Amino acid sequence: MPEAASAQATRAVIGASEFDRDTTLTARAPGVYDIDLSAGWTIINAVNGGYLLAVLGRALADTLPHSDPFTVSAHYLTASQPGPAVVRTETVRTGRTLSTGQASLFQLDEQGNEVERIRVLASYGDLGSLPDDVRTTARPPALPPMDQCFGPEDGPAPVDGSSAITGRLMLKLDPSTLGWALGKPSGKGEMRAWFGLADGRDPDPLALLLAVDALPPTAFEMGLTGWVPTVELTVHVRCRPAPGPLRVSITTRNLAGGFLEEDAEVWDSADRLVAQSRQLARVRLS
Amino acid sequence: MPEAASAQATRAVIGASEFDRDTTLTARAPGVYDIDLSAGWTIINAVNGGYLLAVLGRALADTLPHSDPFTVSAHYLTASQPGPAVVRTETVRTGRTLSTGQASLFQLDEQGNEVERIRVLASYGDLGSLPDDVRTTARPPALPPMDQCFGPEDGPAPVDGSSAITGRLMLKLDPSTLGWALGKPSGKGEMRAWFGLADGRDPDPLALLLAVDALPPTAFEMGLTGWVPTVELTVHVRCRPAPGPLRVSITTRNLAGGFLEEDAEVWDSADRLVAQSRQLARVRLS
Repeated sequence: MPEAASAQATRAVIGASEFDRDTTLTARAPGVYDIDLSAGWTIINAVNGGYLLAVLGRALADTLPHSDPFTVSAHYLTASQPGPAVVRTETVRTGRTLSTGQASLFQLDEQGNEVERIRVLASYGDLGSLPDDVRTTARPPALPPMDQCFGPEDGPAPVDGSSAITGRLMLKLDPSTLGWALGKPSGKGEMRAWFGLADGRDPDPLALLLAVDALPPTAFEMGLTGWVPTVELTVHVRCRPAPGPLRVSITTRNLAGGFLEEDAEVWDSADRLVAQSRQLARVRLS
Repeated sequence: MPEAASAQATRAVIGASEFDRDTTLTARAPGVYDIDLSAGWTIINAVNGGYLLAVLGRALADTLPHSDPFTVSAHYLTASQPGPAVVRTETVRTGRTLSTGQASLFQLDEQGNEVERIRVLASYGDLGSLPDDVRTTARPPALPPMDQCFGPEDGPAPVDGSSAITGRLMLKLDPSTLGWALGKPSGKGEMRAWFGLADGRDPDPLALLLAVDALPPTAFEMGLTGWVPTVELTVHVRCRPAPGPLRVSITTRNLAGGFLEEDAEVWDSADRLVAQSRQLARVRLS
């Protein structure tokens, strides 16, 4: 979409943006990476799970001979904090078109012991080498135009607690999934939004790992409050996203027994279904 | 459903059935289990991925303090063969309500080296302790009654190659997803069936790991032929299934670039959505 020249001059590019800066690791030894987890990607005082997945995803892209995540499975063990962390990766198998790796993120507890925060198993490939044959029958979500959707900056903060991530993202929610912010949750397990990075950086496969976990929880629209911690999250990255904003549509159909699933679809500006994810999360039943 | 007394006398029970016999491992040392992978669970000459997942799932149930799989993520690395295998498990974290473990299945190659076939990350809990609060909005699939559905025994084998698993399962497919077997694939990425074990054993959480990968590939209904190997499979087990047959409904909406996803839902006789899964599989484009 056309932009004023001054806006174009300040748009960040892939490789030189907040997202890249805050997911960059320093290789200390083969398979050992240091990072200072940023406080800029917190949601209600917790470090966002998608940001953490992107950190691990970047470490694996460096370790493995293939650099695009194809399918990433993450089990979240303990809550991460902003501050120093170490990521340890392992090559599980390398193949001609796919490689598989494992990665763990650790932080030190108060006694100085390493505590594992997240463990990931992932298979990587080369998205650019996939054939053009596209027979997707899924259709993009029906989202109103971006200027008819609303972001955190358009109203008072509906949830207490620091959510620094809102400053990193361009998030414009579908008004039909915003009832929770006005005290009138719809009762439906749905959340939809336009998604981008606030500094204008275009999406890439690693940013898709963030996008699938960057919206408010569907639980809010179902009238539940409080934290909805992710137990496990699996993302399929199916296509390099085209430049421009993404559309994210999340659905919950099985809230039961104190757990729920969130199914996310991410569509790019070329109407490709570029990523699909499912997470299992815990809810506090009210 | 009512049964003749003689049929009741021969129904297998959980713990004493083909499925239990063929997924039983022998603990050799803490976290090391031996098993002879059965040739009875092959589909077109390949050992079925769901059977393998159940084997790994049983090993983890033995290793971890919690015995019900909640969320299991498996990356399939190399093709398993019937015969000797070793499963090595690791406890990643134990908690009050959830524990996480990792498991790998290895077989020896012709040179006698251990080759990793599958690596799994899984979180386990106690399904029996979950609160009764069920707000599932998903609805069971519209399947015709079982006596209007068809299994492998009802017609000639549509696919060449040994599929011993058909003798282990009670599988009755929805005729509207059987066009492929009659040379007229519907073109839709759908597969639905009634599912049970041939010896009458009732389902349990481990059997759900088998059920999500036991139907013919949706690819067949989309007009594709050949093997559709699973790259990764994640299963959420949400409820202990009630006794009796299961209904499995599989959907593919994103066949693109030589890969597809299969989303499976498993419903029990009490109309509970007991398991949900998604796998990423490779297709041979025709």
